[in-house]
Amino acid sequence: MAPLESATAAETAAVPKGAPQLKDELDIVIPTIRNLDFLEMWRPFFEPYHLIIVQDGDPSKTIKVPDGFDYELYNRNDINRILGPKASCISFKDSACRCFGYMVSKKKYIFTIDDDCFVAKDPSGKPHNALEQHIKNLLSPSTPFFFNTLYDPFREGADFVRGYPFSLREGVPTAVSHGLWLNIPDYDAPTQLVKPLEKNTRFVDMVLTIPKGTLFPMCGMNLAFDRELIGPAMYFGLMGDGQPIGRYDDMWAGWCTKVICDHLGLGVKTGLPYIFHSKASNPFVNLKKEYKGIFWQEEIIPFFQAVSLPKECTSVQKCYIELSKLVKEKLSKVDPYFDNLADAMVTWIEAWDELNQPGASAEADGKAK
Amino acid sequence: MAPLESATAAETAAVPKGAPQLKDELDIVIPTIRNLDFLEMWRPFFEPYHLIIVQDGDPSKTIKVPDGFDYELYNRNDINRILGPKASCISFKDSACRCFGYMVSKKKYIFTIDDDCFVAKDPSGKPHNALEQHIKNLLSPSTPFFFNTLYDPFREGADFVRGYPFSLREGVPTAVSHGLWLNIPDYDAPTQLVKPLEKNTRFVDMVLTIPKGTLFPMCGMNLAFDRELIGPAMYFGLMGDGQPIGRYDDMWAGWCTKVICDHLGLGVKTGLPYIFHSKASNPFVNLKKEYKGIFWQEEIIPFFQAVSLPKECTSVQKCYIELSKLVKEKLSKVDPYFDNLADAMVTWIEAWDELNQPGASAEADGKAK
Repeated sequence: MAPLESATAAETAAVPKGAPQLKDELDIVIPTIRNLDFLEMWRPFFEPYHLIIVQDGDPSKTIKVPDGFDYELYNRNDINRILGPKASCISFKDSACRCFGYMVSKKKYIFTIDDDCFVAKDPSGKPHNALEQHIKNLLSPSTPFFFNTLYDPFREGADFVRGYPFSLREGVPTAVSHGLWLNIPDYDAPTQLVKPLEKNTRFVDMVLTIPKGTLFPMCGMNLAFDRELIGPAMYFGLMGDGQPIGRYDDMWAGWCTKVICDHLGLGVKTGLPYIFHSKASNPFVNLKKEYKGIFWQEEIIPFFQAVSLPKECTSVQKCYIELSKLVKEKLSKVDPYFDNLADAMVTWIEAWDELNQPGASAEADGKAK
Repeated sequence: MAPLESATAAETAAVPKGAPQLKDELDIVIPTIRNLDFLEMWRPFFEPYHLIIVQDGDPSKTIKVPDGFDYELYNRNDINRILGPKASCISFKDSACRCFGYMVSKKKYIFTIDDDCFVAKDPSGKPHNALEQHIKNLLSPSTPFFFNTLYDPFREGADFVRGYPFSLREGVPTAVSHGLWLNIPDYDAPTQLVKPLEKNTRFVDMVLTIPKGTLFPMCGMNLAFDRELIGPAMYFGLMGDGQPIGRYDDMWAGWCTKVICDHLGLGVKTGLPYIFHSKASNPFVNLKKEYKGIFWQEEIIPFFQAVSLPKECTSVQKCYIELSKLVKEKLSKVDPYFDNLADAMVTWIEAWDELNQPGASAEADGKAK
């Protein structure tokens, strides 16, 4: 069991650090509406990396970033300016806007974290370096075709167990590393209402590959991925302002991503690292955002479980466009919202491809520090 | 990290005990060739339960069981006497013989353990009650249709996370609880040879459902199951004396069981509990037993991954007979061994049904204490 408090800035600063891995190959994407004081607690772990801050809500508000961090910041005006009419695919007044940061990044890897997430402590009380663990997860293979009962076989002190086919031991490239949360768990509004005091105190020292063919609820609070392998599938959908639904942005991205990873032979891991989630969001507000999703997911999930992409879909973009067609065909009858979402999925890919052409990087820059 | 030593008999005896759960509904099955001194370490946990000891090897040898345990013991002569010509389906000189114990049990639940497995300690140093944890696993539902990122949602302090479909939260009955091993991990001979010193020191405080459609390497060292739900599928195959293969008995049972659980909508859990596995078996001997399996599993696993049972198969027996036909049809070309194995699968079901008719219990009794 982990201590039920986050590490302080001083404790984190005291952790011995090696050279930061992937320093020039990873961006940290943070959606926010407030000053980023939470970065103080992460300073020793995040300071070597470049931050992409996606400011949600009122663009006239100034977001303060603690000194010493290397960052670029985009507000709604920047998004509208950079994407023009295609900005319609980026949600407003919802943390789904974070996916704009994935699009403008020029790095191979993304780590995204919410601004109410602090440094967790491991069971020994030591600050837990979430970013370092995500990098380990992404740089070691996944094993989606057969379950290993000692979990990640590439971890120190572990291996494939007796009976694991040798032909599958090479594994496949890892596209996604899904981290977890101590303290306030990521519950839906009904569960929050029923269990207002429940906290997650269990630090499970484990990473595993989610098997091929199995869907999972991907949470965007503490998530890393290989942008080159899966980036265009990490679209967080239409949520928040003007939309009938919220809090399903990461779920949508997770379902699409998993189906495409399965099709392309890429791996998705979950487990370590943990962050310390400081505060539960308001369950009444959440219920209002979620309630349509609670109905819809009963039809969406069987849809994704049944999706089969044709073998011509050899890139993430092709898979995603195909998926948008299937969404339009099969989910529009659930609600007209899915018709709009399917269109937005296409717009997202068009915008992604525009910004990610060779030589497109200069124009995309926001307010770089 | 757990302490790398097993608990002593005195430490285990000091653990406070409530009333033993399922006392009259669970048998402990132990295959052995030696005196069962290891039971001393388990006394406080096992003594309330009935033991079924399956003596392998020379039937004239006397196996000593520590005083105070309630047990029945079967040697090869007993097996031959009870099953007659059908005894051919029970392996000799291989721990696969343990499945005879499953067949003669009259209880709803089985826990089976190897005689070189001791009481593990949890990270706090407290003796870990493996049997109690297996019972918890079997008595709470499984969730094979969607992955829960906080693992077993029925555990204290956990629940289903945001995005988990409400229609799937009831879960399905749990048929199998697969436990793990601290100290000596269950590696195949090649891995043992390459990593002779590797020990498992990671006590992962977690239980999860293996998703539908995913196969896993089931180890028979520390395993519990619901005999009424899945018993007839727990056949450990033809191994050891007179057979071209060993050390695939539990794997075979695991593949068959998982495919049938998936078909019948039953759950398989893995993770906790741990036992302390005291001693690695000889890797050279193991390699000799395993090497055909290492080749064969490359064809067996795709076979099981592709198996689809017809909807007419509504009982474990019907599923198992259907599976035996598919084995004969598809795997006999790998090696004539599978032709014999398919026949033995049928014999096993015939013998199971004979012994498990209403009123058949009296005749099956071995040397009851």
